[in-house]
Amino acid sequence: MQRIPLIVLVCLVVASVSAQEAAKPPVGFSRSSADALAKYERLVLDTPSPSNAKKWLEALTEVPHVAGTPAEKKVADYVRDRLLEFGLSVETVKYDVFLNHPKQVSLTMTAPSRQELALMEDTYPQDTAASYRGQFPAFHGYGASGVASGQIVYVNYGAPGDHERLKAMGLSVEGKIALVRYGGAFRGLKVKEAEERGAVGVLIYSDPADDGYVRGDVYPDGPMRPASAIQRGSVQYLSIQPGDPSTPGGVPSIDGAARITRDQMKNVPKIPSLPIAHHEAEKLLRQLGGPRVPDGWQGGLPFSYHVGPGGAAVEMKVEMDEGLKPIYNVMATIPGTTDQVLIVGNHRDAWTPGAIDPSSGTAAMLEVARSFGVALKAGWKPKRTIILGSWDAEEYGLVGSTEWVESNAAMLSQKAVAYLNLDSAVSGPDFSASGVPSLRDVMREVARLVPDPRQGGSVGALWEGRAKAAWAQSAPVTLGGPDREFDQQLGRLGSGSDYTAFLDFLGVPATDMGFGGSSGVYHSVFDNFRWMSLFGDPDFVYHQAAAQLMGLLTMRIASADVAPLRFSGYARALREDLDEIRTDVTKRARTAVGAPFLPDFASIVTALADLEKAGVAADAAADRVAASRDAAAAARISDTLIQVERAFLHPQGLPGRPWFKHQLIGPGLTTGYAPWPYPALREAVEKKDTTMFGAEAKRVVAAITAATGKLRQAAAVMPGR
Amino acid sequence: MQRIPLIVLVCLVVASVSAQEAAKPPVGFSRSSADALAKYERLVLDTPSPSNAKKWLEALTEVPHVAGTPAEKKVADYVRDRLLEFGLSVETVKYDVFLNHPKQVSLTMTAPSRQELALMEDTYPQDTAASYRGQFPAFHGYGASGVASGQIVYVNYGAPGDHERLKAMGLSVEGKIALVRYGGAFRGLKVKEAEERGAVGVLIYSDPADDGYVRGDVYPDGPMRPASAIQRGSVQYLSIQPGDPSTPGGVPSIDGAARITRDQMKNVPKIPSLPIAHHEAEKLLRQLGGPRVPDGWQGGLPFSYHVGPGGAAVEMKVEMDEGLKPIYNVMATIPGTTDQVLIVGNHRDAWTPGAIDPSSGTAAMLEVARSFGVALKAGWKPKRTIILGSWDAEEYGLVGSTEWVESNAAMLSQKAVAYLNLDSAVSGPDFSASGVPSLRDVMREVARLVPDPRQGGSVGALWEGRAKAAWAQSAPVTLGGPDREFDQQLGRLGSGSDYTAFLDFLGVPATDMGFGGSSGVYHSVFDNFRWMSLFGDPDFVYHQAAAQLMGLLTMRIASADVAPLRFSGYARALREDLDEIRTDVTKRARTAVGAPFLPDFASIVTALADLEKAGVAADAAADRVAASRDAAAAARISDTLIQVERAFLHPQGLPGRPWFKHQLIGPGLTTGYAPWPYPALREAVEKKDTTMFGAEAKRVVAAITAATGKLRQAAAVMPGR
Repeated sequence: MQRIPLIVLVCLVVASVSAQEAAKPPVGFSRSSADALAKYERLVLDTPSPSNAKKWLEALTEVPHVAGTPAEKKVADYVRDRLLEFGLSVETVKYDVFLNHPKQVSLTMTAPSRQELALMEDTYPQDTAASYRGQFPAFHGYGASGVASGQIVYVNYGAPGDHERLKAMGLSVEGKIALVRYGGAFRGLKVKEAEERGAVGVLIYSDPADDGYVRGDVYPDGPMRPASAIQRGSVQYLSIQPGDPSTPGGVPSIDGAARITRDQMKNVPKIPSLPIAHHEAEKLLRQLGGPRVPDGWQGGLPFSYHVGPGGAAVEMKVEMDEGLKPIYNVMATIPGTTDQVLIVGNHRDAWTPGAIDPSSGTAAMLEVARSFGVALKAGWKPKRTIILGSWDAEEYGLVGSTEWVESNAAMLSQKAVAYLNLDSAVSGPDFSASGVPSLRDVMREVARLVPDPRQGGSVGALWEGRAKAAWAQSAPVTLGGPDREFDQQLGRLGSGSDYTAFLDFLGVPATDMGFGGSSGVYHSVFDNFRWMSLFGDPDFVYHQAAAQLMGLLTMRIASADVAPLRFSGYARALREDLDEIRTDVTKRARTAVGAPFLPDFASIVTALADLEKAGVAADAAADRVAASRDAAAAARISDTLIQVERAFLHPQGLPGRPWFKHQLIGPGLTTGYAPWPYPALREAVEKKDTTMFGAEAKRVVAAITAATGKLRQAAAVMPGR
Repeated sequence: MQRIPLIVLVCLVVASVSAQEAAKPPVGFSRSSADALAKYERLVLDTPSPSNAKKWLEALTEVPHVAGTPAEKKVADYVRDRLLEFGLSVETVKYDVFLNHPKQVSLTMTAPSRQELALMEDTYPQDTAASYRGQFPAFHGYGASGVASGQIVYVNYGAPGDHERLKAMGLSVEGKIALVRYGGAFRGLKVKEAEERGAVGVLIYSDPADDGYVRGDVYPDGPMRPASAIQRGSVQYLSIQPGDPSTPGGVPSIDGAARITRDQMKNVPKIPSLPIAHHEAEKLLRQLGGPRVPDGWQGGLPFSYHVGPGGAAVEMKVEMDEGLKPIYNVMATIPGTTDQVLIVGNHRDAWTPGAIDPSSGTAAMLEVARSFGVALKAGWKPKRTIILGSWDAEEYGLVGSTEWVESNAAMLSQKAVAYLNLDSAVSGPDFSASGVPSLRDVMREVARLVPDPRQGGSVGALWEGRAKAAWAQSAPVTLGGPDREFDQQLGRLGSGSDYTAFLDFLGVPATDMGFGGSSGVYHSVFDNFRWMSLFGDPDFVYHQAAAQLMGLLTMRIASADVAPLRFSGYARALREDLDEIRTDVTKRARTAVGAPFLPDFASIVTALADLEKAGVAADAAADRVAASRDAAAAARISDTLIQVERAFLHPQGLPGRPWFKHQLIGPGLTTGYAPWPYPALREAVEKKDTTMFGAEAKRVVAAITAATGKLRQAAAVMPGR
């Protein structure tokens, strides 16, 4: 062989790496496996159609279908029948779970004058009559029965900090009705906070600043929330525990399960609460006396907001029909050739017609299922068993998925490679995805293969372009050196949809995704088929894209030689999360009165450095195993890789919320929807509790170290030279 | 002498430095000079009284007093008489300058229906009748006469970027009436931008989101802008050139001065414009068709804003009485024992009664003058001549102060140590100060000596506490090392008050300061005595504090052995300004299409490092000279120190605006009020003009190097060992 001068060699190596990069098979695949799958991938891209998605959506949203009602059972049967039609094997799994429906609700302004306030939305002739049929009046899922009366006190979003500011003004909600606006935290946590501070009742209204005319034209002329629209929803204390509140021990609500009574439940309110429209809230807010609101509390109604009390009082009467009611998960199974399992899910129950939430997801999922039927007929044989779940009672507190996960915990712990969620799949054209960092690479690959139906280019390229533009504005600049590089990541998962039990209870890698846009009809009766046809996705092409994306993602994960979980970037994501907490701590220390709280993060930083090295080695081994086509090695490394996320669990769970086992991610204790990375550390920082911080840092290091061990084990399956 | 172990020695040195620090005389003073001044400082703190301030304010604000009107001449005489009473020698300096007053104005909505729109405010029985007497209807200072009619197009704040977004939507103001809201840039630049883009007329309204009910309770019940309130004001192109537009060559408007005609003026609009209230603007905005506004354009009116055109049209008729009118600067002089001069000024003319703007400043200045009268009687002899200026026609474009500066340019260039400005001195309790970095130390010292009348502690401590809290939130955190230190700085000076000609035309170190709070009555008839008595400063104690602060600052600067300009921190301030531009450049480069614009800042960074060293040396020399009590050296170093700021000037001025000579600070070309540090560099960055950047960077380096030379000259007056 001829010797080549070093500089030329380097160039050749670079060129060869680039060429190799371009020809690199998808993550987890050998070249030949990828080539063999290509024709089925084509089917998954070609089969979903806008016209079918439109047809499913119209049928799914004909009437409101709240969990536990006959209307929802009918929708379950409709979904089951479609899945059967597509050639899949289907089972309907029933659970009896604790739910409530409103029996009698009323809200009366008693001062400055007596007036009944509306608890139903206005109707518009543009809508079909059916879309209002059987609609419950304003009520909260898991809201308490009760009668409450008192003066109104306005507490902004009802977050703990809002109540603290109220306290600083010498006021409180004690003995009052708290009037808070939607936004920020999950609504149940607004009620929890008010209840703990002595409020006798809670009204939650939709301020036009948050999703009404301040944000755009309102329904029926535009996509945003009109004056009469009510945001229904659950007031479960979601960050404490989701699922059926009558079986809180991490056990499923199956026949013979031990149940607790409502009084014993720790994750539902004791005081009555109601959601109201801003048209009604305005009547109260305008009358409020007391001091002018602090900065940031003013909403979009056309007057200067005051805190109260004084000026306005109400009487609220809430009577619930509550107890065990049947819910139905519709489960389709596509058997795989190996022992691993991939779960793909979407809830089906809705507070209203639910065109966005969740029926856009259900319509897309039906198209995924249909395309799988086509691919199976054409000969596709997934390596991993695919379970498609159509969950019920998600709206009450992720009940259907949580009970199913609890029912199948042992199997899932051992076999589940991932859970892929689709909730509100379409409300506009802008794709975004959240998930664990190990699913980032496969998600990026797939998103780049799906064409955006309106804007040109791929869904992935547009997604990353938007993310990069946001990053370019917000990422700090360090002068005097090269600028940092953009690194596309998945958003972190908080809670508020069905991935929660999979990830937080079992450590199953999970994602959530959808196409978003301007929308202000969340959980109102205007989240209907007309809304979607006019504002959300008039041509149903984003429904099609959602189905293509989910179909391809599922097919790839189910068909890869090696489970396509990748860990090179995991430590970086965890370090960025940690740096956010460290930055917050530093900023607080700058204005600390007395000794600043400056805990030591060094042990975690060190543990993350080890995790990063092990992740790089494991990924390299996974690539080698996939290329080798050694089936035994592939099974071995796949089974190890799916255990990495499990290593982040601790059997005792998070402080005060033992059901949440994951130590590195969870719903914010006081936010619910929004994620808290390192939830226990975050809590220790909020409390400035050095002892707690020390103990929790040890747990975090132990969890990271355990994952590092798993990664090293994976790397050892096929060590590099 | 006994030998002391090293460790003990270190401790002693530290202790001794601390003790020395505590006993350190004020900046520029020897210990003995400081001690000698103490009794006069006491008088300046003890003399100003709330009751006098209240009395002056009530008299000054009896009626609206626009420049060029008999009402304003009466106020000039009132101020002159007070200054004479206080024992000062006073001169009234008259200039004939180009001004306009409204002769006939009307605004008619012509579509969708014909309706006259109001150009006068509502009146309230709570106000005195006199406070409305002779009030001009809505008009703009230097606004053009003309008739315009057309469709309305809404362009948010009317900034260049807003028009660009409109263009991206395929729309423009060409041939239309631009409806823009107040906020952001100086109003004249809104008209300039619209005119350049072909608008035939401009309406500027006050949106409730900016200073109305969204911000708080409105007049007469609260301090914010009510629905009928109109923000009058000048539409001169302030960032191009202030002063009398008929004498633009940097020359004063004295008898026989060469004048240009209105048509020849480059810094006043050619198209008519009017300010309107949101009560009237709402009638137009509600009707607008066209697309929904982009993000950030929505205001506080209770509907979804649209851009237009279509839906609303107007006819505006504006007839001005314009030409040369007399203005009066009232100047009091307190002679000093050296050649240097300190100017302290405040404008007097107002669009309305002007309780905040500017009469709170005038009332405080009268108390300063009164306390100086007392101190002079007690034997105080300032080293530097003090000139107190009560400027006229500031509202039209800093006319009185600019013409005076141009009249006295040679004297001021040679002798002026500083200019201290007071405009709207009081609208609430929160002190803030802007100015050149060399006046930071003396301002901090003085602010720490004035007690806050309501909140406890000193004005300075509260000011720095607020600044530190804001810094703690916004300053970037660098992890993995000690956190950066807070460095209290003065805000940078843009334009919009009378410091402009001193600093930007002549390079005289300048400051501006005041006590702020919630206020939405700017340039409306509700900026009156009742407003101040109820909302701004009910006990007039912040008027007292403003007088104490300005009195003490003036006395110190006038009495110091060595001119109290300090330069150790100047380079840091300039580096921070530069880093903001560099950060901006880096962020833009992240999303650049094609080759990113990444100019080289290295030569400026190097020049600033030299400036910093020279500043430290000059300060140390100034300390030595002050301590030495060597009068000749003090005169020499003082005369050198006052030339440092002059070194930043360039005779050709900034690109396209030759009147602005300062190379390192100026009003933003497109902002007016807001400062642009390194104005020419900033412009080159906006234009991505590499050639321009290179040329301007050379000028900037030359300016910094010239200042470094002056500082080295100062250090050489008394070199350290």
